[in-house]
Amino acid sequence: MGQGVHVTDLPGVGKRYDIDLEREDERVSVVIRSSGVRDLYVFTSHSADPTAVLELTEEQARKVGAVLSATFFEA
Amino acid sequence: MGQGVHVTDLPGVGKRYDIDLEREDERVSVVIRSSGVRDLYVFTSHSADPTAVLELTEEQARKVGAVLSATFFEA
Repeated sequence: MGQGVHVTDLPGVGKRYDIDLEREDERVSVVIRSSGVRDLYVFTSHSADPTAVLELTEEQARKVGAVLSATFFEA
Repeated sequence: MGQGVHVTDLPGVGKRYDIDLEREDERVSVVIRSSGVRDLYVFTSHSADPTAVLELTEEQARKVGAVLSATFFEA
């Protein structure tokens, strides 16, 4: 699982996870703040600026994570 | 976990999961195709068009999912 995910410490903030999508112009970065809040950055172009930024609470991030991992089950 | 996630069958394609972020203008939708490919749609405005769209393989989606769920561990 470690392959293709680059982790950077952000002192005083949390950790940044860069997920390599094996495409030159597409990347997903997630910052997990010490508070639990996640910032999701989606890059879909060569620009250094993200195409979309979303701030997610821990619970929201877990929901999105569960759906993406296909471990989500309907209640 | 089911709360806040709306699942729609897409006959012949797969399933769409809409994750409510409790903000009027922000939404995440994931289409899981029968092939396993995931389409991630991020909406950050009132527009019906997504701000960012990413096509993820099953493995890539699991990586992003693991990071978001904070179940990711460095190899």
